Amino acid sequence: MKIDLNCDMGESFGHYTLGSDEAIMPFISSANIACGYHAGDPLVMMRTVTLAAKHNVGVGAHPGYPDLQGFGRRSLELSAEEIEAMVLYQVSALAGFAKAASTELVHVKPHGALYNQAATDNPIARAVARGVAKFSKNLILVGLAGSALVAAGVVEGLRVANEAFPDRAYNFDGTLMPRQQPGAVFENVELVVNNAARLATQGISSGNMQVKVDTLCLHGDNPIAPALAKAVWTALAERGIDVMGLAKVL
Amino acid sequence: MKIDLNCDMGESFGHYTLGSDEAIMPFISSANIACGYHAGDPLVMMRTVTLAAKHNVGVGAHPGYPDLQGFGRRSLELSAEEIEAMVLYQVSALAGFAKAASTELVHVKPHGALYNQAATDNPIARAVARGVAKFSKNLILVGLAGSALVAAGVVEGLRVANEAFPDRAYNFDGTLMPRQQPGAVFENVELVVNNAARLATQGISSGNMQVKVDTLCLHGDNPIAPALAKAVWTALAERGIDVMGLAKVL
Amino acid sequence: MKIDLNCDMGESFGHYTLGSDEAIMPFISSANIACGYHAGDPLVMMRTVTLAAKHNVGVGAHPGYPDLQGFGRRSLELSAEEIEAMVLYQVSALAGFAKAASTELVHVKPHGALYNQAATDNPIARAVARGVAKFSKNLILVGLAGSALVAAGVVEGLRVANEAFPDRAYNFDGTLMPRQQPGAVFENVELVVNNAARLATQGISSGNMQVKVDTLCLHGDNPIAPALAKAVWTALAERGIDVMGLAKVL
Amino acid sequence: MKIDLNCDMGESFGHYTLGSDEAIMPFISSANIACGYHAGDPLVMMRTVTLAAKHNVGVGAHPGYPDLQGFGRRSLELSAEEIEAMVLYQVSALAGFAKAASTELVHVKPHGALYNQAATDNPIARAVARGVAKFSKNLILVGLAGSALVAAGVVEGLRVANEAFPDRAYNFDGTLMPRQQPGAVFENVELVVNNAARLATQGISSGNMQVKVDTLCLHGDNPIAPALAKAVWTALAERGIDVMGLAKVL
Repeated sequence: MKIDLNCDMGESFGHYTLGSDEAIMPFISSANIACGYHAGDPLVMMRTVTLAAKHNVGVGAHPGYPDLQGFGRRSLELSAEEIEAMVLYQVSALAGFAKAASTELVHVKPHGALYNQAATDNPIARAVARGVAKFSKNLILVGLAGSALVAAGVVEGLRVANEAFPDRAYNFDGTLMPRQQPGAVFENVELVVNNAARLATQGISSGNMQVKVDTLCLHGDNPIAPALAKAVWTALAERGIDVMGLAKVL
Repeated sequence: MKIDLNCDMGESFGHYTLGSDEAIMPFISSANIACGYHAGDPLVMMRTVTLAAKHNVGVGAHPGYPDLQGFGRRSLELSAEEIEAMVLYQVSALAGFAKAASTELVHVKPHGALYNQAATDNPIARAVARGVAKFSKNLILVGLAGSALVAAGVVEGLRVANEAFPDRAYNFDGTLMPRQQPGAVFENVELVVNNAARLATQGISSGNMQVKVDTLCLHGDNPIAPALAKAVWTALAERGIDVMGLAKVL
Repeated sequence: MKIDLNCDMGESFGHYTLGSDEAIMPFISSANIACGYHAGDPLVMMRTVTLAAKHNVGVGAHPGYPDLQGFGRRSLELSAEEIEAMVLYQVSALAGFAKAASTELVHVKPHGALYNQAATDNPIARAVARGVAKFSKNLILVGLAGSALVAAGVVEGLRVANEAFPDRAYNFDGTLMPRQQPGAVFENVELVVNNAARLATQGISSGNMQVKVDTLCLHGDNPIAPALAKAVWTALAERGIDVMGLAKVL
Repeated sequence: MKIDLNCDMGESFGHYTLGSDEAIMPFISSANIACGYHAGDPLVMMRTVTLAAKHNVGVGAHPGYPDLQGFGRRSLELSAEEIEAMVLYQVSALAGFAKAASTELVHVKPHGALYNQAATDNPIARAVARGVAKFSKNLILVGLAGSALVAAGVVEGLRVANEAFPDRAYNFDGTLMPRQQPGAVFENVELVVNNAARLATQGISSGNMQVKVDTLCLHGDNPIAPALAKAVWTALAERGIDVMGLAKVL
């Protein structure tokens, strides 16, 4: 049994600090690094890629809408061509920092509203996947397990990873419950740990299928995030589930 | 005799159109393409790289300060580390579009205030050169002929190109006269053409040295730009000076 | 018979020039001036307000989404509170330039996607109207004739103006046909002039009501805009319809 | 004996939180509220103005350079006209939120690099003062005690307040030591408290003059800021120095 643990990283911006990247990095195997559109700036990207490389954590691009004020969580109505170009831009920028740190870009996971829209909207999913594939077909596209984004990645010739969220509530249709809804984000460590173990071993149901989960997302933007990451990492190890990077899990 | 002709390209942004890229592209050998900081956006970058590739024009990154309102022409006081990261970010982003268009990034030329500061300020010049070299030592760094930027490129192990401006007045110290000064920009075609031929054949004096000029910059943001580019291209050909890309000129 | 003629103005940004403000200003009675979010910058606002005042044209704020790249034409999913604050911010900023030019802010008309969403979405319409009313209940809120925005203005205690578009095609439900659809924007001067006269004299049907039209919108962002504005102005005068500012029309 | 205590407020942005506004507000008499250029956004401005009004704290605009990434601390080379328009824009926007909260804008204090440049550069100082005066000559302009900005305010017919910094080291020429220099920011509470009392009672020397200090600045962006504000407030009260708003101090 093996699974990847991913977390959003590099979400600070200029004078503004967000997240606990240094504390969480030891307990994940993949980092989704913001690319300067919804969060992050060149200096933050440089430091975060370097930090990930130091911890042998897989470097991923985390492209989002150009909306720093809304942290990429507000839907923005772009054309497919705009989405494709915007994804290619952000992926390329992050890949450059990986190159400069003598490592390689492994995966791409869209952020926030773009992630959610790409989970159910085929043209958006296809545009995201095309933007990634235009940079390199060797990249792994991470999407909600069983979603339109994962399907689009396959169509574009990318390797894909099905993702699940042990600390988030799901709607009946398999989409994530919006985070502003009460009860959408779990903060009970035991509950999250048990969800993580279950998702890693049993997968998740999506539509009328059971989908194998390749990677679990841990949230980094709350005070207990480092403790939670450590607890999940430890619990998975105790149950004989190896945490390793996406390239080895797939 | 051979020389490169370069022009700033891809300076439109969203709904705002600037320049005459399609009309000028046939008469240059290198395009300095804006990277989304002082001008340009992902869609404009994608289209401009494609246009350059179609015309066999060398694709270059044209990084500038993050100041769309000032078009990158206003000095901004960044740390060396910020400049290095900002250059690496923009170069990487443009290189991604080149990759997607099945071509390669050839050169990097900083824009506006960053170009001018890097011409005389050693720490800034070094930071720019480091940002470029971290992406790839195969890139050609373009700077004002005989400037601190060219010297910094050599120190960082890059190939360098000395640039001159046939349509701009120079100060006695070899720096460019600021464009808001009267007489700083020449609009007489014959004068510009003769300057171009002279610079291509005789080089330019910088300090107490005579420097061979590798590339001539033509400005793209005025109505006569396409006519001017054609006139320079033609005049050089008539005098037996071959216009070709930077990689062949150096 | 009397009617107001309005046009979007001040849409340049930094180095980017858009529109023909000086040529159009003589032929309108109200200017909707961009406030720095989807277009415009402080210097452009200062100059445009001064130009409007010089021509005795009513000064209005034209708030939009914070999306310069999309020119405010891409829907962005904001909370009602965010919209209210964003409108208040932009209206206040423009009112300051009016104050500095010894004139007064007369009206507010939302721009692009915000205008279209506020035409049919009640919570958005209410949020826009609240943002305006919080600045001053003396302002006139301009919305699509018979729309949710006009109704919301009334609820918030504002004076309202019903607007129609002589150069745009309408959907059957009274909303504007999206401008990217073929045929959505009329460029035949005679057609536009006749539409203008008809709308000014007969009003427009909205739902099962006939609504009196208080103001006609002329578009400023195409080459024939000044000629069109002059033609409409002249044609209305010839038919005995007086063009005058919103305060006098209502 | 009386003195004003001011603090920068409303420096959060979207998802990014900065400062301890609620904890500090009880211990100051003037709030310098960011206006959306170097920090702050419309929602943050609305909430901060409301918070200040609730605590009877004087509402001030805190305009800065349009440089969120650099938090307005990086010098940017603007023309005098750009500075004037940019200050007027930000002051107007904040005044609108004050109006909406049924209070009034009392003062304006430029932020960061703009503050520092306006302290010694006459054309910049004049441009700032003009931007303020164009909005209203009733506003109080706050500048470094004895600086060019204070002088420019007087020339433009504004009331002015001389400011000193009990938690900052000064250069011999009376300018502030740049905050990145070691020892530039004091964190010893007793030292800061004693400085505050001394500055309030004896003023500060600027050039060869002794200048009466009207307002003391407390920094809000460090963890001990609330404790420090309370300690200064208490110490001043114990020494019979009344803390009150700028309008009453001048």
